[in-house]
Amino acid sequence: MSEFSNIDIKSLTIDGLQSLCDSLREKIRSTVIQTGGHLSSNLGIIELTVALHRVFDFPYDKLIFDVGHQCYAHKLLSGRDGAFDTLRQRGGISGFPKREESEYDCYNTGHAGTSVSAALGFAKARDIRGENFNVIAIIGDGSFNNGLVYEAFNSLRPLNTNILVILNDNGMSISPTVGSMHEYLEQLSRDDEHRAKVEKHSNIFERFGFSYDGVFDGNDLICMIDKLTEIKKKLQTQSVILHVLTKKGKGYSFCEENPQQTHGISGEGNSVIASYSEVFGRTLCSVAEKNKSIVAVTAAMTPSLGLSDFFSKYPERSIDVGICEEHATILCAALAAQGLKPYYAVYSTFLQRSFDEIIIDICSQNLPVTLCIDRAGISGEDGETHQGVFDLSFLNMIPNLTIAVPKDVNELEAMVRASSTFNAPLAIRYPKDCKIIFKNDGEFKFGEWEYLKRSDGNVAVLACGERAIGLAMAVGKELTAYGIDITVVNARFVKPLDEKLLNGLNAHMVITVEDNQLIGGFGSLISQFYSDNTAVLVKSFAYADSFIPHGKAEALMEELGVNKKNIVDYILKNADR
Amino acid sequence: MSEFSNIDIKSLTIDGLQSLCDSLREKIRSTVIQTGGHLSSNLGIIELTVALHRVFDFPYDKLIFDVGHQCYAHKLLSGRDGAFDTLRQRGGISGFPKREESEYDCYNTGHAGTSVSAALGFAKARDIRGENFNVIAIIGDGSFNNGLVYEAFNSLRPLNTNILVILNDNGMSISPTVGSMHEYLEQLSRDDEHRAKVEKHSNIFERFGFSYDGVFDGNDLICMIDKLTEIKKKLQTQSVILHVLTKKGKGYSFCEENPQQTHGISGEGNSVIASYSEVFGRTLCSVAEKNKSIVAVTAAMTPSLGLSDFFSKYPERSIDVGICEEHATILCAALAAQGLKPYYAVYSTFLQRSFDEIIIDICSQNLPVTLCIDRAGISGEDGETHQGVFDLSFLNMIPNLTIAVPKDVNELEAMVRASSTFNAPLAIRYPKDCKIIFKNDGEFKFGEWEYLKRSDGNVAVLACGERAIGLAMAVGKELTAYGIDITVVNARFVKPLDEKLLNGLNAHMVITVEDNQLIGGFGSLISQFYSDNTAVLVKSFAYADSFIPHGKAEALMEELGVNKKNIVDYILKNADR
Repeated sequence: MSEFSNIDIKSLTIDGLQSLCDSLREKIRSTVIQTGGHLSSNLGIIELTVALHRVFDFPYDKLIFDVGHQCYAHKLLSGRDGAFDTLRQRGGISGFPKREESEYDCYNTGHAGTSVSAALGFAKARDIRGENFNVIAIIGDGSFNNGLVYEAFNSLRPLNTNILVILNDNGMSISPTVGSMHEYLEQLSRDDEHRAKVEKHSNIFERFGFSYDGVFDGNDLICMIDKLTEIKKKLQTQSVILHVLTKKGKGYSFCEENPQQTHGISGEGNSVIASYSEVFGRTLCSVAEKNKSIVAVTAAMTPSLGLSDFFSKYPERSIDVGICEEHATILCAALAAQGLKPYYAVYSTFLQRSFDEIIIDICSQNLPVTLCIDRAGISGEDGETHQGVFDLSFLNMIPNLTIAVPKDVNELEAMVRASSTFNAPLAIRYPKDCKIIFKNDGEFKFGEWEYLKRSDGNVAVLACGERAIGLAMAVGKELTAYGIDITVVNARFVKPLDEKLLNGLNAHMVITVEDNQLIGGFGSLISQFYSDNTAVLVKSFAYADSFIPHGKAEALMEELGVNKKNIVDYILKNADR
Repeated sequence: MSEFSNIDIKSLTIDGLQSLCDSLREKIRSTVIQTGGHLSSNLGIIELTVALHRVFDFPYDKLIFDVGHQCYAHKLLSGRDGAFDTLRQRGGISGFPKREESEYDCYNTGHAGTSVSAALGFAKARDIRGENFNVIAIIGDGSFNNGLVYEAFNSLRPLNTNILVILNDNGMSISPTVGSMHEYLEQLSRDDEHRAKVEKHSNIFERFGFSYDGVFDGNDLICMIDKLTEIKKKLQTQSVILHVLTKKGKGYSFCEENPQQTHGISGEGNSVIASYSEVFGRTLCSVAEKNKSIVAVTAAMTPSLGLSDFFSKYPERSIDVGICEEHATILCAALAAQGLKPYYAVYSTFLQRSFDEIIIDICSQNLPVTLCIDRAGISGEDGETHQGVFDLSFLNMIPNLTIAVPKDVNELEAMVRASSTFNAPLAIRYPKDCKIIFKNDGEFKFGEWEYLKRSDGNVAVLACGERAIGLAMAVGKELTAYGIDITVVNARFVKPLDEKLLNGLNAHMVITVEDNQLIGGFGSLISQFYSDNTAVLVKSFAYADSFIPHGKAEALMEELGVNKKNIVDYILKNADR
């Protein structure tokens, strides 16, 4: 089983190392096709990873991957090859670095731009404790756009410590990299004449206290080993940036030619009816035809958000700022302040970066920005750092914000259409895949909930979002066998609550179901609504207070207790109270 | 009354403009001494503001102040001189730009680094709508360290629009500015020989697509008018950075010599017993003497956080990263991952910037970082953008985090001492001033609440933090006149709840009181705790779902309904239910 970790990488010949690269490449390709995961980025970084393991001494030396999705070869070389087939599966190894998985992973990552700050923290701790290991951050050119990198660079001199930053430049994040820093990197990477011209001026990185070394071919194993060996000595006295070019998807022509499509791939298929992202993008395109105020803003993931067509059709009203979630949020607030109608599309987990700007820039100014929150709820195989289970909680507390949760793609379409004339901050949150289409109870109206099942009994289930409503409907069906007829409500606006409906509800037991953390979520609003009404018992089904690991969304919900059996059992046990 | 706004600034002679500057300076000085507010920064920017109003046409042109605390002269010149005596008073004018106050304030600010992003948004909206105004951001060198500025600069070229950024360089944020960018600005500002050396290399700002113009004396009115007139023409075809040096506190020797102490000053005195910041700093100093793992981290406000002595005594374990709250948070996580015990001290409102990093870097890795959250609860006169009323809500939802709220400075000291051996993420939140010292009920224990008043009756008030507990005790006292004896509990750990105490509580009515938003706060945890227990009525007193304007903390609490009368009335009315 231990195909790779029994290898003594320090004693292999160059030929042996080359063939190790080939084996790693094949292992990663064949596994990821089965399990799903990040493919092209991992194929591009194999030689560099092998060279790092050859030259440095892990886990004594510390290696921090920015974002962390490109750590597969590192995992295979650090004792996890036997378990590699379990990649991203519940109970198996994670697709990201995990301290709890191996001492070779010294720092967990998942969101962009954190690696240089973290490397500085490790290096500073080393200095304070009088230790002597090397600290290395590997960061892509996409992450390089994030403000965190600048903050870290800017504090290198005051911190007075030494680290190695490897800039793994492949010209891509999920979308092609944008911005002046990217152009600058390109200039450095161009032919000698251009480079000489740029080099004549002092290098930006040197201004921050780094010794700059580049540009080299990161897929050239021998070159990488030589450079790293040389730099390892330098690190005793200074910080270094090593700028390398790698080929995303290296070694497989389909991946090399389609790096965007093969950045992350899904494993085996499932019963998906439609993509929320696609419906969102298509609807926004349609609405924007008449409404010329609509602007779409993204942070480096336009295609995954369903906005490729919008960007093609309305380039003058399309803005991709790169991986700069905070900047994107403020830009939207200012566009709205000047009379436009911006839509900021973003994954739930990355919206966490914009928390302060949603409060201050959008909501305290009550500006009509629409947050289109994709991959909300359990997002699955990427694990702890990518679950979208906090958004209802962190948005609920923000004044002036309306929060909408469509029950299916049809309702998303209705919401996006209605949003175009909504003149205040709005958040719409939805998962990736639509697997159920529900019937509508009459016309969709902004701010109003919907009865999906009405009964005269005293049990009501209030649910928001497809997965929760799917559960609620299944619970309703199951309970009829016990002679219990419940009411099911589509609470499609989490904030403000539909108080008219709530006040008209005759239930003595109100059950809430949601695809979000328990604390601060939809259920907590309902608990507070009824808190001084002792005639109503409220029980919330949501995720208990812990981080949710990688696995399949439905299986995780089941495991976390947000499942049909638990809700049915609770109602049966307590219906007579 | 309208001493300034009736002036036709376009037709004044230079002498007239100079004497206008003198009058503005005197008006600001004499007012701020009465009202409290930001003094030295506003004195430094008067000539620049007058020159801007002379050359540009506000409100047609758009002026955005970074952070916004330096907008006083602008307010005096835009119709608000008559109301200037009400600065920072409830119902009076705000100390920060406010759209709702004047059309001359086009964008509200409060937190650092947002102005360039906002300016780009306004400029892009202008281009999309085919308008033609100018957009100007004024930003200090302190804010310039924030990653947001880099994100905005990096997207200038892709956005393909024109703005003016005025870099108001006075070498200070609240603390002296740190970092390589600051050193670079200093090089540009030094004598001609140095400058020529730097200029030979291409200017960093030009790399991002700006035309760089500097360095000029920002307190030289004629020079500023000339430069701005020249730049106004340039703005038709390109973006410009104007780099000016200003003297913080300009015109008053005490302010010039003490820019740090006069950055923000308080108005008239009040009944403060002790400063939480000072007690925190003193205690950390004391604990760090034996515990060599303790490191203190700040983001540009060391003295206001009570850490000046710590930084003097333990320079090798003190880190000020500049206004980089995200970077500071990750740095702490990495220091902790490598075995140190970091304390990140920060104002509650600015901790919002670190939300994602608290989740991912600190808590998902379960690292022993202590967040020392100052100015928590209503912070008062700075208004909407500075209230610390969200922290309990946004921290409650994060797994693995313990949240402590001391009832007074003595309990803060006990908590800081106890924290030094606490091996998990911890947040301690406290306001600026301590005005009450409470009696202790026995020894302080980590995780345990405390009875401050015990009764056999069925009403219990659970409160956290000095202001809330002060109210709860006053309510208890008042109710004895009605023959009602209540229990009062110091809920000094908001998370996890002291379930042992809760389960032993015989109350049928549980009242919660806190200095935080209602949604997601302490009360919401208690509501959820009792949500399916119909024997217990829960009523929470906290701030309703809206932004809290500027004013005095106690008066605002009264006005927002978190007051003795409301709580007493509620208990009297409902005690028999």
